[in-house]
Amino acid sequence: MRKSIATVSVSGTLIEKLEAIAAAGFDGVEIFENDLLTCPLPPEEIRARAADLGLGIDLYQPFRDFEAVPADRLERNLRRAGHKFRVMERLGADLLLVCSNVSPQAAGDDELAAAQLRLLAERAAEHGIRIAYEALAWGRHVNEYLHAWRIVHMADHPNLGTCLDSFHILSRGSDPIGIEAIPGEKVFFLQLADAPLLAMDVLQWSRHYRCFPGQGGFDVAGLVRHALNAGYAGPLSLEVFNDHFRQAETGRTARDGMRSLIALEDTLYGAAHPAVPTGFAFAELAGPGSLSGVLSALGFARTGTHATKPVELWEQGGARLLLNATGSATGSATGSATGSATGSATGSATGGDPALVAIGLDSPDPGAAVKHAESLLSPVLPRERAPREARLDAVAAPDGTQIFFCDTAWLDGFGPSGPVPGEITRIDHVALTQPWHQFDEAELFYRSVLGLSPQESLEVPDPYGLLRSKAMADPGGRVRMVINLAQVGTEDLRWQHVALACDDIVAIARRLRAEHPDLLLPIPANYYDDLEARHDDVDPELRELGVLYDRDEHGEFLHLYTVTVGRVFFEIVQRTAGYQGYGAANAPVRLAIQHAGHH
Amino acid sequence: MRKSIATVSVSGTLIEKLEAIAAAGFDGVEIFENDLLTCPLPPEEIRARAADLGLGIDLYQPFRDFEAVPADRLERNLRRAGHKFRVMERLGADLLLVCSNVSPQAAGDDELAAAQLRLLAERAAEHGIRIAYEALAWGRHVNEYLHAWRIVHMADHPNLGTCLDSFHILSRGSDPIGIEAIPGEKVFFLQLADAPLLAMDVLQWSRHYRCFPGQGGFDVAGLVRHALNAGYAGPLSLEVFNDHFRQAETGRTARDGMRSLIALEDTLYGAAHPAVPTGFAFAELAGPGSLSGVLSALGFARTGTHATKPVELWEQGGARLLLNATGSATGSATGSATGSATGSATGSATGGDPALVAIGLDSPDPGAAVKHAESLLSPVLPRERAPREARLDAVAAPDGTQIFFCDTAWLDGFGPSGPVPGEITRIDHVALTQPWHQFDEAELFYRSVLGLSPQESLEVPDPYGLLRSKAMADPGGRVRMVINLAQVGTEDLRWQHVALACDDIVAIARRLRAEHPDLLLPIPANYYDDLEARHDDVDPELRELGVLYDRDEHGEFLHLYTVTVGRVFFEIVQRTAGYQGYGAANAPVRLAIQHAGHH
Repeated sequence: MRKSIATVSVSGTLIEKLEAIAAAGFDGVEIFENDLLTCPLPPEEIRARAADLGLGIDLYQPFRDFEAVPADRLERNLRRAGHKFRVMERLGADLLLVCSNVSPQAAGDDELAAAQLRLLAERAAEHGIRIAYEALAWGRHVNEYLHAWRIVHMADHPNLGTCLDSFHILSRGSDPIGIEAIPGEKVFFLQLADAPLLAMDVLQWSRHYRCFPGQGGFDVAGLVRHALNAGYAGPLSLEVFNDHFRQAETGRTARDGMRSLIALEDTLYGAAHPAVPTGFAFAELAGPGSLSGVLSALGFARTGTHATKPVELWEQGGARLLLNATGSATGSATGSATGSATGSATGSATGGDPALVAIGLDSPDPGAAVKHAESLLSPVLPRERAPREARLDAVAAPDGTQIFFCDTAWLDGFGPSGPVPGEITRIDHVALTQPWHQFDEAELFYRSVLGLSPQESLEVPDPYGLLRSKAMADPGGRVRMVINLAQVGTEDLRWQHVALACDDIVAIARRLRAEHPDLLLPIPANYYDDLEARHDDVDPELRELGVLYDRDEHGEFLHLYTVTVGRVFFEIVQRTAGYQGYGAANAPVRLAIQHAGHH
Repeated sequence: MRKSIATVSVSGTLIEKLEAIAAAGFDGVEIFENDLLTCPLPPEEIRARAADLGLGIDLYQPFRDFEAVPADRLERNLRRAGHKFRVMERLGADLLLVCSNVSPQAAGDDELAAAQLRLLAERAAEHGIRIAYEALAWGRHVNEYLHAWRIVHMADHPNLGTCLDSFHILSRGSDPIGIEAIPGEKVFFLQLADAPLLAMDVLQWSRHYRCFPGQGGFDVAGLVRHALNAGYAGPLSLEVFNDHFRQAETGRTARDGMRSLIALEDTLYGAAHPAVPTGFAFAELAGPGSLSGVLSALGFARTGTHATKPVELWEQGGARLLLNATGSATGSATGSATGSATGSATGSATGGDPALVAIGLDSPDPGAAVKHAESLLSPVLPRERAPREARLDAVAAPDGTQIFFCDTAWLDGFGPSGPVPGEITRIDHVALTQPWHQFDEAELFYRSVLGLSPQESLEVPDPYGLLRSKAMADPGGRVRMVINLAQVGTEDLRWQHVALACDDIVAIARRLRAEHPDLLLPIPANYYDDLEARHDDVDPELRELGVLYDRDEHGEFLHLYTVTVGRVFFEIVQRTAGYQGYGAANAPVRLAIQHAGHH
């Protein structure tokens, strides 16, 4: 399907927007009037620039407060429309969006609205222009999409149709199935936006919190399906007002919008995700040797060294970690042509600080997985195929972390190794703190590229701000990722952690407390006083060992944290009886102690 | 009155919070439980630290979901309370906040709630502790303050009273006059928060958007007056949940909170502002000589040079500008002991870039004005009194701009000067872009310290973000300030401007267009195409001259902008027939063009 986007959805000047939108692969744009007014180029040059870029101008918008007005105002409004028609001719745009009237001067009179819109359509026809009439969710009298359609139907002019906007429809809780009552050819335009489910004034919600389909809580694909069933054959066009997108890098937002439409098409065509990962193959840590001491203490053993790269394999139970000594070296740190076969630090690694640089995922079909990721505009990373090195497919996540799709062949590079029995059984989850402005992008990436589903979403108080956190997992709970956004002071806090599962955390804690007491994050006694107030059946040894505790309706969660090394720390977790969460209630305690050690 | 603040209102660890709160002059604190749980110190040490700092622990909070529950849960809740009583004894706190129950297990049964709260009060009494029961705005059954009071009244125990919170009362639109129905001694605690008037879920509103009294839209002082009328004699305590405050510098937020309570007391005691300014005496610009060319072009003439400082006086009509050649020099740029008699660049001036560093205000009583500012914790700037130099009283605004309170004596330092006739009549307004996190602080400063009142407040789209803008003015409209907050990309955009009033902008524009065409910000033709669509009676010469146009229900506004020099630009404005605004509709055009020149 043809794909468009409103210029208001991305940051920049109009020309910067057009260039980024074209580069992301869109077919057309909606020109938002404000972007035209502030542009020093005349409409003819904008038209030529768009044409050079291969972009059609699919819509000009918005035209406000037109219909159902007294006669003198109608005269002025038609005059105003005449000016806009001339601008559109110069621009080469032939579709004008007319929003339902919000003015107190508008009458609640459908016949009057229809008659005046018919008049507008007649004038538009003289210029070869068509009118798409849309019900704003906060329109004074017309705020339901079927009401707008009723008026369009009454007006009965070939140059008048309706525009459907998923936000205006779904934010009101209207059922989109009614779209099928509208002849497809009378749906002149279809605008798409998602949004988080917020209880707030719909105008503010619309102006600040819209996001791309797949980043919020609406069933946008379901709505599009109804429009297709009705026979709609026009573009899918993104129209997103979002405070973050306004500030973010133009090209990045445009690509993210295109990714959302491709993923939406996949959903529409019922494409199953070709290769949802089935587990963690490894997590790769880069940086100086300080991490090997931590891994030894945690019971990991070095089981192999890469044949040609300075990368070690460390194992325990089903958990595998790679230590990359070149993390901060320029060779593999560039993430460009020299990427190692196992993953290498990208620009996200800070100079020398230990960091989590790559995640390996067990994939039922690595080739299909990387092809799918590529279809969703994820940067595919270059590979080397030296002798004895496994070919590994990898893409870059939005924060620069490398995601590898693995079958078992990747282990060959490390030579033969036997199983390392131990207390740790596997990687439970990986948590990545996202850069500012990329939280929505990360969520869409993990949903669409990896096929994970969002679980809990919450806000955690930190001594210097709030941490926004969203957990995502595959249906079997074998691949769990937590993405965090830290709004803390002016720091770019980029802590990452690997959580390791075990079956007996008390035994591990006893051993660590005895042998490596400095490795564990100390937990305040005040925490345990409160824990005992909340639960009268908690093992008193947890206090002594510094193990944190949570429970949900299913089961219990016991966990502990190591201190932070560089940007990385480890968590050890024990889930019982199907506990689903991540101990969020305890996160503020962890954050406060980590900050205390950090400041 | 005794002044307290909840630890959740400021950022930092608990000890950092206590230190900053004490330094700001508070008498006591509410310890927010989360701050205790995450603190490595035992309650006894926290108590000692607070005592050393001269802070009482006026309240411990919150205790949730206690009342109107089934018998088995009551047992557990009393056990939980017992734990908290012991913590409070160790902490030396004797007042516990109990929030109305939000749990689905709570019954809508006032008698049950009263009986259980009475039981809690009896247990508390054994520890010398009192209970303050508060209606949360989103309480399941109890969400009105008079409902909470009814239950307290029914329970009838000396250790049980009510807690009033201005947010919970005013956010629901409840009339606070009912407070006078409560005996003052049964109001155990009074929590104060303001908030902008938002239409959103009250829980989210409360958790993220509260602010200090005088920074939002509630009549907090009116509510306090009712509590005092009822006989309340306890502390005024700030309890603010605010995402910005969580990230901002601890000490700064604590001082701002204290300022809000002092201003609130001033309002309560009916203190008239001692010296609302009556006009702009001058605006001082610092930096290299590039600005003198701009001023000459605008028709200003140099009328004096300071006797002892490298500062020039430029005049036209009633507008006076100071050019300080040492803006970037270390001597006067420090804003510390060497501040000049006329104002000098503070830390806010960037190296060498022309910047607006000071504003002089005509004050009916400069001594009283600076004393008032000092009482509101504004930093008073040091002065030198060299021979022939006027003594000038000045304070630092939140963004570092120096505010001078002037009588006419300040002109003496520049020697004799005659009037400079010209097209410019006076300074119309000054616009200052505030650093991130300091917007609320700036609003409270200009309200309380200068006695200005907020006018319009709006959001303006910028190519790389949104500009939040608030205009403030004295009742006569002689001192108008616009404070902006720019959320644009990652830049710290700090443009400032001085708007100059005139009576014939077309004449000025003609002259400038002819003599200094490069000085004017070019306005796109597309803007005028739209302007003509909106209004059919606009002078076509405006397009040719690049003059912008707006109108409100009173009159018209014509304005133009110079290009930006360093961080500064000038606006020339003409108001007719009582136009009250600032041409906000045209701000997006200006911002886009300024960015185009900047990038």
